[in-house]
Amino acid sequence: MVTTRAQPFSDAERAAVYRAIAERRDVRRGFLPEALAEDVLIRLLTAAHQSPSVGLMQPTRFVIIRDRAVRQAIHAAFVQANAAALSTYGEARREQYAGLKLQGLLEAPQHLCLLCDANSSRGHNLGRHTMPETALYSTVCAVQNLWLAARAEGIGVGWVSILDLSALRSLLAVPDNITPVAYLCLGYVDQIAAEPDLERFGWETRLALEAVVSEDRYEDRLVKPVKAGGSS
Amino acid sequence: MVTTRAQPFSDAERAAVYRAIAERRDVRRGFLPEALAEDVLIRLLTAAHQSPSVGLMQPTRFVIIRDRAVRQAIHAAFVQANAAALSTYGEARREQYAGLKLQGLLEAPQHLCLLCDANSSRGHNLGRHTMPETALYSTVCAVQNLWLAARAEGIGVGWVSILDLSALRSLLAVPDNITPVAYLCLGYVDQIAAEPDLERFGWETRLALEAVVSEDRYEDRLVKPVKAGGSS
Repeated sequence: MVTTRAQPFSDAERAAVYRAIAERRDVRRGFLPEALAEDVLIRLLTAAHQSPSVGLMQPTRFVIIRDRAVRQAIHAAFVQANAAALSTYGEARREQYAGLKLQGLLEAPQHLCLLCDANSSRGHNLGRHTMPETALYSTVCAVQNLWLAARAEGIGVGWVSILDLSALRSLLAVPDNITPVAYLCLGYVDQIAAEPDLERFGWETRLALEAVVSEDRYEDRLVKPVKAGGSS
Repeated sequence: MVTTRAQPFSDAERAAVYRAIAERRDVRRGFLPEALAEDVLIRLLTAAHQSPSVGLMQPTRFVIIRDRAVRQAIHAAFVQANAAALSTYGEARREQYAGLKLQGLLEAPQHLCLLCDANSSRGHNLGRHTMPETALYSTVCAVQNLWLAARAEGIGVGWVSILDLSALRSLLAVPDNITPVAYLCLGYVDQIAAEPDLERFGWETRLALEAVVSEDRYEDRLVKPVKAGGSS
């Protein structure tokens, strides 16, 4: 009996996909003033729009923000939320936090907000009876598609989550039934760094894969086991 | 003044990334019995592990399920949740729903559960003061990375959300502080379809990009405007 099997991409194609995944970075600095070319923007949005969605509901909505006044208002909302966040840290972390550059909202000539119409009748609720959160998750898949496409285009993407959702709703006229999921800075940049900023500047280190994988049942491998009868 | 600009991938590399995005499918049929080669599995997990995470917290945990008894128990949980879902549909949709193949849990020789340690102290809460949901969203980004890598490898991935979370927690021994985000069938398949199953079988149609994009503020373009004074 002959069994057909779906074929992999060519070695060069596979390497390109893995390159985009490995070299994708959260970019917060170095945005250039030139606006994104329209054809590039359409390619990025198309990539996002091709993402999986529960029940094929396609709940993701996009707002592209170019208006300078709106971008400035979003930046002001960031400044406020960031000051509140800063105040929660103890002395040592506070200084480090204050020194991090966490967004490029004023420099990036366009922002992109991805939102979710999580209660849309599209998809006829398939897959959402047990896990309604999969509607929001579908929109996150769109973010990641866009991020990888942007990396292949040499375009910087920075996800800004230090924003009060009610401020964001108000500034973008988002109705109650629509949920903002991700607010992104987007644009040409001078470079895309080899390492994550938060690692380069000593905020956090990356985990080894082995620490987060278990077999057949969940096991927490980050927690060191307590040695029975250990004396030190 | 010379401005440097981050360079795009080569045309061939960019095309490969866009190909993975365009040809990725939710695969529920045609899983082959051969187990995934270990090196391929490691590549897929590495791709997922390289996903962005808020504050570099890396909250994603992986459980790879190969044990037949566990896979069968998960399938039984699906059957129960699916019967409950079926009963919510009216007559016409019910027949159509019952005819859909929504999972390959018994055929796929391995499953993968992605979970989130959403309250981990890693990342020191950076970016989570205002949007704590970004921890869960980080794990969804890992799913999408894995899905695209799998497409490039010619490997099928099917996200099964018709599962009761408490059943899943119990079967995989997931503690209360850890959130199951995605349960995937994973494996070699006979083919990866050109179109989404749910479109091919008439459950839902895909939207045009233009219907979901607006500028500077949110606008619902799916809702047809009511014509003032319209008579029909």
